[in-house]
Amino acid sequence: MGIVVQNIERADPEVIKALGECGVATVHESQGRTGLLASYMNPIYTGAQLGASAVTILAPPGDNWMVHVAIEQVQAGDILVLAPSSPCEDGYFGDLLATSMLARGGMGLIIDAGVRDVKDLTQMNFPVWSKAVFAQGTVKETVGSVNVPLVCAGAHVNPGDVIVADDDGVCVVRREEASEVLEKALAREANEATKRARFEAGELGLDIYNMRERLAEKGLKYV
Amino acid sequence: MGIVVQNIERADPEVIKALGECGVATVHESQGRTGLLASYMNPIYTGAQLGASAVTILAPPGDNWMVHVAIEQVQAGDILVLAPSSPCEDGYFGDLLATSMLARGGMGLIIDAGVRDVKDLTQMNFPVWSKAVFAQGTVKETVGSVNVPLVCAGAHVNPGDVIVADDDGVCVVRREEASEVLEKALAREANEATKRARFEAGELGLDIYNMRERLAEKGLKYV
Amino acid sequence: MGIVVQNIERADPEVIKALGECGVATVHESQGRTGLLASYMNPIYTGAQLGASAVTILAPPGDNWMVHVAIEQVQAGDILVLAPSSPCEDGYFGDLLATSMLARGGMGLIIDAGVRDVKDLTQMNFPVWSKAVFAQGTVKETVGSVNVPLVCAGAHVNPGDVIVADDDGVCVVRREEASEVLEKALAREANEATKRARFEAGELGLDIYNMRERLAEKGLKYV
Amino acid sequence: MGIVVQNIERADPEVIKALGECGVATVHESQGRTGLLASYMNPIYTGAQLGASAVTILAPPGDNWMVHVAIEQVQAGDILVLAPSSPCEDGYFGDLLATSMLARGGMGLIIDAGVRDVKDLTQMNFPVWSKAVFAQGTVKETVGSVNVPLVCAGAHVNPGDVIVADDDGVCVVRREEASEVLEKALAREANEATKRARFEAGELGLDIYNMRERLAEKGLKYV
Amino acid sequence: MGIVVQNIERADPEVIKALGECGVATVHESQGRTGLLASYMNPIYTGAQLGASAVTILAPPGDNWMVHVAIEQVQAGDILVLAPSSPCEDGYFGDLLATSMLARGGMGLIIDAGVRDVKDLTQMNFPVWSKAVFAQGTVKETVGSVNVPLVCAGAHVNPGDVIVADDDGVCVVRREEASEVLEKALAREANEATKRARFEAGELGLDIYNMRERLAEKGLKYV
Amino acid sequence: MGIVVQNIERADPEVIKALGECGVATVHESQGRTGLLASYMNPIYTGAQLGASAVTILAPPGDNWMVHVAIEQVQAGDILVLAPSSPCEDGYFGDLLATSMLARGGMGLIIDAGVRDVKDLTQMNFPVWSKAVFAQGTVKETVGSVNVPLVCAGAHVNPGDVIVADDDGVCVVRREEASEVLEKALAREANEATKRARFEAGELGLDIYNMRERLAEKGLKYV
Repeated sequence: MGIVVQNIERADPEVIKALGECGVATVHESQGRTGLLASYMNPIYTGAQLGASAVTILAPPGDNWMVHVAIEQVQAGDILVLAPSSPCEDGYFGDLLATSMLARGGMGLIIDAGVRDVKDLTQMNFPVWSKAVFAQGTVKETVGSVNVPLVCAGAHVNPGDVIVADDDGVCVVRREEASEVLEKALAREANEATKRARFEAGELGLDIYNMRERLAEKGLKYV
Repeated sequence: MGIVVQNIERADPEVIKALGECGVATVHESQGRTGLLASYMNPIYTGAQLGASAVTILAPPGDNWMVHVAIEQVQAGDILVLAPSSPCEDGYFGDLLATSMLARGGMGLIIDAGVRDVKDLTQMNFPVWSKAVFAQGTVKETVGSVNVPLVCAGAHVNPGDVIVADDDGVCVVRREEASEVLEKALAREANEATKRARFEAGELGLDIYNMRERLAEKGLKYV
Repeated sequence: MGIVVQNIERADPEVIKALGECGVATVHESQGRTGLLASYMNPIYTGAQLGASAVTILAPPGDNWMVHVAIEQVQAGDILVLAPSSPCEDGYFGDLLATSMLARGGMGLIIDAGVRDVKDLTQMNFPVWSKAVFAQGTVKETVGSVNVPLVCAGAHVNPGDVIVADDDGVCVVRREEASEVLEKALAREANEATKRARFEAGELGLDIYNMRERLAEKGLKYV
Repeated sequence: MGIVVQNIERADPEVIKALGECGVATVHESQGRTGLLASYMNPIYTGAQLGASAVTILAPPGDNWMVHVAIEQVQAGDILVLAPSSPCEDGYFGDLLATSMLARGGMGLIIDAGVRDVKDLTQMNFPVWSKAVFAQGTVKETVGSVNVPLVCAGAHVNPGDVIVADDDGVCVVRREEASEVLEKALAREANEATKRARFEAGELGLDIYNMRERLAEKGLKYV
Repeated sequence: MGIVVQNIERADPEVIKALGECGVATVHESQGRTGLLASYMNPIYTGAQLGASAVTILAPPGDNWMVHVAIEQVQAGDILVLAPSSPCEDGYFGDLLATSMLARGGMGLIIDAGVRDVKDLTQMNFPVWSKAVFAQGTVKETVGSVNVPLVCAGAHVNPGDVIVADDDGVCVVRREEASEVLEKALAREANEATKRARFEAGELGLDIYNMRERLAEKGLKYV
Repeated sequence: MGIVVQNIERADPEVIKALGECGVATVHESQGRTGLLASYMNPIYTGAQLGASAVTILAPPGDNWMVHVAIEQVQAGDILVLAPSSPCEDGYFGDLLATSMLARGGMGLIIDAGVRDVKDLTQMNFPVWSKAVFAQGTVKETVGSVNVPLVCAGAHVNPGDVIVADDDGVCVVRREEASEVLEKALAREANEATKRARFEAGELGLDIYNMRERLAEKGLKYV
């Protein structure tokens, strides 16, 4: 604890943006069904969708001092990813910190804890995915770390990894694999468009994916 | 496991539709306060309300193969009711399967597990009541069963039972009792309209329902 | 159990209204970070914000009889605060009771249990903060108490205390401290406006709050 | 609600006892991996293991009146299976009711709610599997039903079904299938004994079950 | 926050001890079914049972400084009752603090958070009822309060109130009501002894409590 | 998915053993309060305490095939650490697999899912820390990975890391840091022995740690 890493690498901004446009489900599938944060991470309002570069915060329970430290490290296109060092639902973040983030080009917040001032954040169009909405205030007494690897809502996140988030939740993509995952995601999207047309025309998945024979082999019986 | 029942009976479509219009709270009361699914079953968007006929799916954890099998059994006016054979929050269902459902006249999904692509599903006006929103992908390796009786979110559901769902949650009505429950529900609605007028006029429930004497008998004291 | 207190004191209506306008986070901070109800208390629709005077209900599990008793005690500007005597998610309250509340000038409901008819309540603009949305019906067999002190969602509430509620949750202010808390809350809002301007201009919290020296003393290291 | 079924059929006592001796895991596997109650059902003390015939109780939340009604229906070898009609953790059952059960040859309690006096119950050797240990008292105001089909902790239970319970949890076996399941369970036990000897000798499951080829086909890579 | 109340009143030690011997279920019933802490409060080992006088601690999340402050206020026969000011599972207390408590005649700990060193505490015969067992360490940076009223696990506790705890959980008795509650508890125990004898002799609760007529009035039907 | 890493490095067996003897709380503190698995990881029986080297398993939900694959990689002194690729409580592991582990010198199991046959495992003295006890059977249809880094119950675990587990829970120590952490842990134990003697003699933590002045500076008031 007590470390701020100032120089971190980030993925290509174009790749980050394109991953955001693919969305969580597609990106998650494209990297072998890995990288999802837990299902309890909910957006404070629906409709937000983004790709962004992670600035990580490991914070003591009930202490949001490190958020101020982290914002100094934020560049345009970054998103804060906060994990408490033990489980906590306190409201680490509100409208003043969001104002500060927006002033620096920050894109949002992923927090395995609580957030508050959600009406203001919604009006500011500042997206947050959180474990809780809770007004509980925090102190500034104990240092944590910024831009260290951490586990957030069950997923391992390194500083500079790509965060993809939408109404389905949050997914992390390793910085080194971002381009490769994007390529697979785009291929997947193209493939899905074809499939969608066939489904719309009334074809069944059983036929589109040739499932009938294998189902019979596995012993499925129609009665 | 491994059975697909192809011919199931359904209730009268007019009855199903009318039950849907009565809504969950009224229908639940009209059948003796039974039939509710657990309170953790939430709609992915507010405002949807329906009555539909259940096509049931008993699916292995993390395996959505049976959804494809079930959709072939869907007729216009049906809704899928999926229970995993052990607790699971994976995203068994997304926009492609919803497209397939809509092409067949399917009305929605009740799932004691996860759903994904919720932004797309909302735009498609495809209603889902689920335990979780979670993008976690599933495999197609193990067979389950379709149109067998099962327990979904704490409620027993037979294939062909009537599902009523709205912003309050989900209620199941036995197929054989659908007409009788509808009759009681309509009577209840009529009765509520009268009560509502009296409440609007400022009368108290204490007087409308003649509660004062019985409260005194039970020992309630005003101080 | 079995007591209804008829004469309770209330705070000054102007103070109550002004506290409501300050919102939960500000009021909570202004009284030393106390008074919050648990984070699981969610509004049934977003955007509602109010200050109101508590009429409390201690109710048996699955029994909403006391709600009728309590509504007779409601004056304009009051809000019901219901705690079950043991944990329960049943739907104690629906649109008829809301109609009755509105007819008496009641402002809403805080309930550490379930609520139903949420689509109607939303259309009626009747705000509710609850633990659950659940249509489960209740009986009228056992008496509880009205206007006694109780614990609701982890917070101690006296009858006549001030309830502040918004999208962030619910906070209770002691009746005797309402004016003093309001004064601090208004001062806090004024202070926040100044801070907001500095954040918007791109200043960092590290500088606005003079944190750098103290962080160094605590051993924070930049690498 | 409000029905007591007095004549129910029971499985053969020898079969019931033998199923109990096989234990939960073996019985569950022998009926196609079905019948388990939820994992939150814990024994109040370790070491108890039994097979028994279900007398079911559907009880209102916070009301244990029906337990008294049910005990009159209990015969030697029976076990009570209680589900509340909505989620509840109250302590429906304590040492006096256990005394009454033992006097009638009752074997224990399965309860999707709370139990109390657990120190006494342990000393009396009266086994209980419950959702909670909670002293919260209950009332006797509202009738429920006895010996009707119900859902207990996620599993469908009919009166007269066989309950198998041990430190692993609780499993229900349909009365009509009890003999057939027992046969499979005994075969499974015999098979396991052979397997156990091979495992003890240091053989690997990979070889005992001939898994290597199929793993390679599925693409498993050793690096 | 930041207050230590040094002089608190305590109940009569004989009364406290006798309440402890009655146990949680009996005491809870004797004070009108009130005073229970939430069902998630578990003993770290079975068999402990006590009555003790509460020294309360309101502690910041993840900060156990106030435990040291509180122990100075402990007298023989006291028990610590700790509530975090926001939900927390950290391990505020371990074997060194227990050693300190025992040296001062302290009797145990009730904590709506975590405890650690439970093997040592068990060997020392130091009873703890907690929300969690969790080794997570805490800091000593922020002051809280000692001997102020607080809400612990859903129950309101004043300093000097009587704590009764056993395998069923924890119950609080108001200091001022301790003698009266004890009297009722002893009467209840005497009454239960008589009932127990009748149950042992095979009588039914239906007859002991004269329930049959009232059940019939409520509409219970035997079929 | 689908990878088995065969050659992993392990820490010095003497260091591993000594860390186990220090126990979870001491080791966790000695590495800067990091490395704990979530508090929901419970031992199936009390009293077990160990240090062991991690063989990791990333397994599909409801599929225990990889456990068989992993056991082939186990050496004397190893412990299995299983994380499902999505949340799951199924019983991946029972007495036959424990028999196989013991035959190879395996020391136990850490599993962020369910375990079964716990009575047998207890009699075999085979320790398990798990999220659930649940008999639910699993299939062998989908491959996962063995000896890859993973997140288990919120903690990042690499193959070859040291696992310390006791009644307080589970802690992971990076392989590379094992010796250094051990050194600190032993120093901490020595220091605690001195402290314990002073606490036993009745000294207060306030004096032993010189807290009084700093508490006054922070504003603590005695009244």
